[in-house]
Amino acid sequence: MWGFFIGRMSGMNTTNHAMQNIPNVDLIIEAHWVATVVVNAPLLEHYSVIVQADAIVDLLPTVLARKQYTATKLVRLDEHILIPGLINCHTHVAMSLMRGIADDLPLMTWLNDHIWPAERAMVSEQFVRDSSLLGCAEMLSGGVTCFNDMYFFPQATAMAVNQAGMRANLGLAVLEFATNYASDADDYLQKGFEAHDSWRGNALISSSIAPHAPYTVSNLTFEKVVTYAEQLGLGIHTHLHETRDEINQSEAQYGVRPIQRLAQLGLLGPNFVAAHGVHLLPHEIDLLAEYGCHIAHCPSSNLKLASGIAPIASLLQNGVNVGLGTDGAASNNRLDMFAEMRLAALLAKGVSEDPTTLPAHQALEMVTINAAKALGLEGKIGSIEVGKQADLVAVKLSDLDISPCYDPISHLVYTCGREHVTHTWVAGELRYSNGVYANIEPIELKEIVQTWQPKLRQYKH
Amino acid sequence: MWGFFIGRMSGMNTTNHAMQNIPNVDLIIEAHWVATVVVNAPLLEHYSVIVQADAIVDLLPTVLARKQYTATKLVRLDEHILIPGLINCHTHVAMSLMRGIADDLPLMTWLNDHIWPAERAMVSEQFVRDSSLLGCAEMLSGGVTCFNDMYFFPQATAMAVNQAGMRANLGLAVLEFATNYASDADDYLQKGFEAHDSWRGNALISSSIAPHAPYTVSNLTFEKVVTYAEQLGLGIHTHLHETRDEINQSEAQYGVRPIQRLAQLGLLGPNFVAAHGVHLLPHEIDLLAEYGCHIAHCPSSNLKLASGIAPIASLLQNGVNVGLGTDGAASNNRLDMFAEMRLAALLAKGVSEDPTTLPAHQALEMVTINAAKALGLEGKIGSIEVGKQADLVAVKLSDLDISPCYDPISHLVYTCGREHVTHTWVAGELRYSNGVYANIEPIELKEIVQTWQPKLRQYKH
Repeated sequence: MWGFFIGRMSGMNTTNHAMQNIPNVDLIIEAHWVATVVVNAPLLEHYSVIVQADAIVDLLPTVLARKQYTATKLVRLDEHILIPGLINCHTHVAMSLMRGIADDLPLMTWLNDHIWPAERAMVSEQFVRDSSLLGCAEMLSGGVTCFNDMYFFPQATAMAVNQAGMRANLGLAVLEFATNYASDADDYLQKGFEAHDSWRGNALISSSIAPHAPYTVSNLTFEKVVTYAEQLGLGIHTHLHETRDEINQSEAQYGVRPIQRLAQLGLLGPNFVAAHGVHLLPHEIDLLAEYGCHIAHCPSSNLKLASGIAPIASLLQNGVNVGLGTDGAASNNRLDMFAEMRLAALLAKGVSEDPTTLPAHQALEMVTINAAKALGLEGKIGSIEVGKQADLVAVKLSDLDISPCYDPISHLVYTCGREHVTHTWVAGELRYSNGVYANIEPIELKEIVQTWQPKLRQYKH
Repeated sequence: MWGFFIGRMSGMNTTNHAMQNIPNVDLIIEAHWVATVVVNAPLLEHYSVIVQADAIVDLLPTVLARKQYTATKLVRLDEHILIPGLINCHTHVAMSLMRGIADDLPLMTWLNDHIWPAERAMVSEQFVRDSSLLGCAEMLSGGVTCFNDMYFFPQATAMAVNQAGMRANLGLAVLEFATNYASDADDYLQKGFEAHDSWRGNALISSSIAPHAPYTVSNLTFEKVVTYAEQLGLGIHTHLHETRDEINQSEAQYGVRPIQRLAQLGLLGPNFVAAHGVHLLPHEIDLLAEYGCHIAHCPSSNLKLASGIAPIASLLQNGVNVGLGTDGAASNNRLDMFAEMRLAALLAKGVSEDPTTLPAHQALEMVTINAAKALGLEGKIGSIEVGKQADLVAVKLSDLDISPCYDPISHLVYTCGREHVTHTWVAGELRYSNGVYANIEPIELKEIVQTWQPKLRQYKH
């Protein structure tokens, strides 16, 4: 059909003078359905997205698009829904090589006997680059175009992100204690700013300052983080209220719960993304709402590590913006935003005992526009609108194992899996399609696994 | 590799007299890993399953199997784990055409305005056959070899099961009120027994009596069910304690909670499978344990319909046998036992706040041997053992989007999805492999969807 259609357009160009004024664009995507994820906008049927360079330049019915544009590339998606690229709001992509290394263990055993020893022994610039590339490949094939990361050696993750052709908001990790990456909080900060400088001007990579968690970062360091974030105009990304232990420890050490401590230190604000937020009291939810903070809800990880279940229905009712995250592959064990979207929607209903809680369209917003808001990127990504970046994902809705489809949005959330993603574009470039990556060879990923897995195996449960 | 190996075996046969005594069997499956799901048995590595007709006749290291057997068919699974066929312990397969017809609605709106009107208008022998075939195809491709069903026109479901070549325990549905299928409880029972007689002698189909639920079945009918179940040696399959409303209604009408009422009526026993069991008090869990009843836990459906979260950790601690089910496609919306296995394991940890709850191997038991016990079929299916039926599933563990794999069982539960199933055998016959069914044509399924979806669409949300 592709060749046929191009032929028809060329033919029209030669026979109709009026057609000579038709602009030729880089890419036209004709989709059966387009979910723009713009508030109150209807689901579009038989629409085309017109892409020039990295941006969406028009969005119109396909019957009109065929008259108004020609394209260097035309993609017809007769059985697909086109959605904004999915955004993973909290992950540690460089932990991909530790996927499933230690499951079904108490948290402190998991950390002390498996994850931390493995990290101490293995984590290096090369490890982070390799493991991040594996994770980027996994995410691209599952329709993820952007992720919010936090890990050591962020410049090595940036190398993988660049190769994959994805978008990322990379955390400049800060802790008090020494690792292979840095010696103390000031060293972390300095290395973070060097990394930040290294991707300055890169249109696909942005930064946030990422103090690891209230239990690993001192008051003095948090104060520095606030100052630097203000000076550089950066967001702040941290783990917060993930476990009961973290809260008990804070009460013992600081006399207050972590969120109160961070509020006192001036961290809360519209540039603040708290991963998890599992254990929150009503007045803490109010606090998050008042300050315009964002929650990166990680339902799979919170369940798997037995942290608990975040009060999402209550957060939403109180107007707190919530994005979804996978967390790292060591606690999930998939970087799969379809799984998180489905689980978040189901879990919120089950816990609230109200089946109208977190309907499908809202779950889709959480992995697109709401996540973009959390990263301060809602002007660029998160919805399909003219002027925004062409971060787009096609999902085939017609496979027989998921038929019939009555409501494409509901189908996307409750029935589809990431295995139904057929195309992933980032900034107008096709980065993944039907098993093939633009810039990643399967043999390269296989070699990464074969190189590192034997070394990591000694830390396995 | 297949041709090469067969060639080598034939060559050996002609040159070595000793080889002439080597038995030729129907099927040898050489697998990298074999999870037998036998209690306390280790994961087997480089083992072969030897199949003759419908049964497993040997299980031995592949190096030995190559010396001891030749086969008409040899399947090499170098990167796969072989597991027992998955058993869906509670479903309504004939609701597959209603997948996603009405999501995110309050339960009574969902039932009164969508599901029941659609059923009243559509359900017929032809509908049940067609819709069941669609569901059977979905399940086979996801590694499900057997399911425990409850719906109208079970003989029509049996037709689909026969075509698909699956195994099923079909419920003889009983209600008080009239439907397209039957007029009153006695009519349901009579039609059920006719259906039961129709598949007598069919090795793959068994029956249970399926009184719909405590709120749709009278005491008198329950008493008849108990009598018939004893006389015919059948199991009993019902919905129980799915919602708080059901319990409140029973207290108002009968003065006791439903489980107490069923206990008084003599229903509880080792042949009793209760779907859901979401709301259970500690003494009710004791009661289930004492009587040796089984719970078919349906985590996706219970969350999606906002029924709540079943106390699985407590059921397991008290020795109640738990299988997993998808429920129907109108409330899930996938008949996907990988999704249920993962969700059950995650949810039990999150709710109990103990990450060691429901470890991966136990989740696998719930969809295999424990489900077989619930159906009284543990002598035939549910594990890979000599003498049992060759209901087997191969899952490829090496795809790059799920690499690396440190622990195959944990990988199967937390990382794989049904999209990694490559082969599904039922009673020694390959019924599904890599997108192709033995006895179901894609065009047939497409026609089923195209026939019924336009008629059902008027009932959609």
